[in-house]
Amino acid sequence: MPDLHLDVDRSRGVRAGLEHALREAIRALPPATRLPSSRALAAELGVARNTVAEAYSQLVQEGYLTGNSGAGTQTAGATQAPAQHVALVREPRVRYDFRPGRPDVSTFPVAAWHAATRQVLNTRPHEALQYDDARGPAYARAVLASYLRRVRGVQAAPDQIILCTGVRQAIGLFTQTLGRLGVRSFAYERPGQAAIPEQVKRAGLEARPIPVDKHGAVVEALGDAGGVLLYPASQFPMGVPLAPARRTEVLHWARSTGAFVLEDDYDGEFRYDRQPIGSLQGLAPDVVAYAGSASKTLAPGLRLGWLVVPLPLVDAVIDEKTWSDRHSDSLSQLTLAALIASGAYDRYVRSSRLRYRRRRDDLIRALGNYRVNGTAAGLQTVVDLPPEQDEHAVLRTLAEHGVETFGLSHFGAGLPPALVLGYGAQPQHAWAPALSALAAGLRSAHL
Amino acid sequence: MPDLHLDVDRSRGVRAGLEHALREAIRALPPATRLPSSRALAAELGVARNTVAEAYSQLVQEGYLTGNSGAGTQTAGATQAPAQHVALVREPRVRYDFRPGRPDVSTFPVAAWHAATRQVLNTRPHEALQYDDARGPAYARAVLASYLRRVRGVQAAPDQIILCTGVRQAIGLFTQTLGRLGVRSFAYERPGQAAIPEQVKRAGLEARPIPVDKHGAVVEALGDAGGVLLYPASQFPMGVPLAPARRTEVLHWARSTGAFVLEDDYDGEFRYDRQPIGSLQGLAPDVVAYAGSASKTLAPGLRLGWLVVPLPLVDAVIDEKTWSDRHSDSLSQLTLAALIASGAYDRYVRSSRLRYRRRRDDLIRALGNYRVNGTAAGLQTVVDLPPEQDEHAVLRTLAEHGVETFGLSHFGAGLPPALVLGYGAQPQHAWAPALSALAAGLRSAHL
Repeated sequence: MPDLHLDVDRSRGVRAGLEHALREAIRALPPATRLPSSRALAAELGVARNTVAEAYSQLVQEGYLTGNSGAGTQTAGATQAPAQHVALVREPRVRYDFRPGRPDVSTFPVAAWHAATRQVLNTRPHEALQYDDARGPAYARAVLASYLRRVRGVQAAPDQIILCTGVRQAIGLFTQTLGRLGVRSFAYERPGQAAIPEQVKRAGLEARPIPVDKHGAVVEALGDAGGVLLYPASQFPMGVPLAPARRTEVLHWARSTGAFVLEDDYDGEFRYDRQPIGSLQGLAPDVVAYAGSASKTLAPGLRLGWLVVPLPLVDAVIDEKTWSDRHSDSLSQLTLAALIASGAYDRYVRSSRLRYRRRRDDLIRALGNYRVNGTAAGLQTVVDLPPEQDEHAVLRTLAEHGVETFGLSHFGAGLPPALVLGYGAQPQHAWAPALSALAAGLRSAHL
Repeated sequence: MPDLHLDVDRSRGVRAGLEHALREAIRALPPATRLPSSRALAAELGVARNTVAEAYSQLVQEGYLTGNSGAGTQTAGATQAPAQHVALVREPRVRYDFRPGRPDVSTFPVAAWHAATRQVLNTRPHEALQYDDARGPAYARAVLASYLRRVRGVQAAPDQIILCTGVRQAIGLFTQTLGRLGVRSFAYERPGQAAIPEQVKRAGLEARPIPVDKHGAVVEALGDAGGVLLYPASQFPMGVPLAPARRTEVLHWARSTGAFVLEDDYDGEFRYDRQPIGSLQGLAPDVVAYAGSASKTLAPGLRLGWLVVPLPLVDAVIDEKTWSDRHSDSLSQLTLAALIASGAYDRYVRSSRLRYRRRRDDLIRALGNYRVNGTAAGLQTVVDLPPEQDEHAVLRTLAEHGVETFGLSHFGAGLPPALVLGYGAQPQHAWAPALSALAAGLRSAHL
């Protein structure tokens, strides 16, 4: 008979505390170990015998114990488990964050978000928090359709919009849909977001890189691909817009081959020296899908994204979304819609744009005579390195100064050495010291 | 030269208003239509010529127009699009909602949710809204690990938990992971959630039904399947718990064949007449994954779910999550964690349990002498129909009384006729009239 060492926490009731303590004890015992009788254990613990009997019976139901009061109670055979505890691994803290694709979340509009949440929860119909359409709440889609039309020239009826978990999911839904419809290959810009080729392959498609030059993606390289992901407003990470002739050319390609274009408008709201360039989707909503998010304008952690789908594909993408996660969080989507409808979203985007523009100007000054590209838009800039420089050596030197960023090689193979410096991520109050650290790091690297 | 009918909305500035109006007008024009000169249009509109020239230049950049001031400005070739507007289809309003799997969201704890959101946003570190671990915020996982251990006997280190978008996504992530690891077939209980077989097939696995009897899933039917989805606490929709011997048997099957079990604990918090039955995962965390959500305890629209993964599969599931949507909404997950940590979540679950228990008792009374099953737990009950009754005819009669629900046939083929009545969905204030409508409907159907 084992000595059970039961540590019964009575704060939640004797019965619950006893069951909990028994489960813990049983896990440490070999199978078929006989337990004390309910009478003996009750006496030992100073509780009612019935309490012990009920706890034993409960654990028989749960499979921890076998037997009954007649034959004696024993541990069941399947309760030993290997040790399950793993230390929590935390990413090392980045002191000066120049990683591209990250906004400053320290200025997140907390008060406006609260007000919008309150408005949603206090005025919503009950059904708003029930299971909803796979595309997300109809009201949120209607507000977004009008916002995207006004700000980005997107042509979308609310029924064509699938609210989703960021652009990552939008790309997944779209490429999976094409895969199920029989498309074999999908092109992407190189350099581009590092995750794309793997994501395309996981959708069952061949991932085909196309090059990028000073006019943006070289669309004549598209060949017989069944679709392509493009950054028309501002190439990631190079920052150039897709030239007008290329826009026309890619639409012609899509229409004549039956292919579809997916426009990743990842930071279309941030353009500094001129009007933003309208979306490609607005020109050809029949062959261009449009993906965007609030990841750069509000915060990536909210995972608020959207996909505007050409009509012939809407049903298939709804299917894909339904089977992947039913729909995305309605409350945060309705909150975003309230933020847009009240004008608070536009105000925050405007103030962010001014802040980032100042940072870009600071960065260009700090970089002195280095050759800097792609400064007209977005949240990052590309600094060419001399051809003999080793990107990784420069990144290591910067890391010694507490600066984290990426080399261009992170975004595609076969590219000249360069740094991709994001100026969004750093919290505003630590921007000046970050810039000094970057300058010091670049001096150490003899750049 | 077309008459452009430009309706310039100057509220957002003449330049932006003019560009918007031009885009709309150009969409209605055939390709290669020549536009008025910037001078002529400026005079017509009473704006500066430079404003028109800049707007034309912008639309050339965007691909709406071609040419320059010398050769004349023309519409480009690719701007006509088919009509894009589709009427918003809304689901018809259900008057008396007896659909299973839906909680009462009219009692959602608005004030507690606000307080928890405020706490998160006012005390968070800045990084909390930045891109995060694919599993979700470490703090939220730590709180959940302790909650699941306390309430459901789940054994999980925070590192084994993947926060996700509801149980639907949890099942998708798990089955896709098994598929990539080479598993060919996956079993599921029939009856069960209607979506499962299709979701399993989409993960590339053969979907194999196993029957259910009064002891729960018939696990001896598992054969050489590589995994199985089970409802151990309370079979959906039959409501029976998996019998102790079956628990032992299925763990033996998993360990001896190398298969994995996925436990869907879809409403483990709701058990009325006795202690809740602890999770199967707690008995064998090395071979059982555990999926749960706040969809029944708080609201489905929040899409708050979690998947506890056996250690050997953690990395593969993290990959799957990373490529599907990077991670889920951090703010709502941290808000849930704050709600749990403050005790507000437990209080709300407790009050909901009492409310649902009263509804269950009301329902049993209203059903009089009908044979009712699965009343000990969950949010639904199964009412047997006489063998000669046609489920669809009964459902039609109920619909005439404003009552929407499902027949057992919705949850799997080859089952005896029965109704699956959910008593969670109806808002509290309309529970009594709903019950009267149900009783009237059943009388009309001669049940």
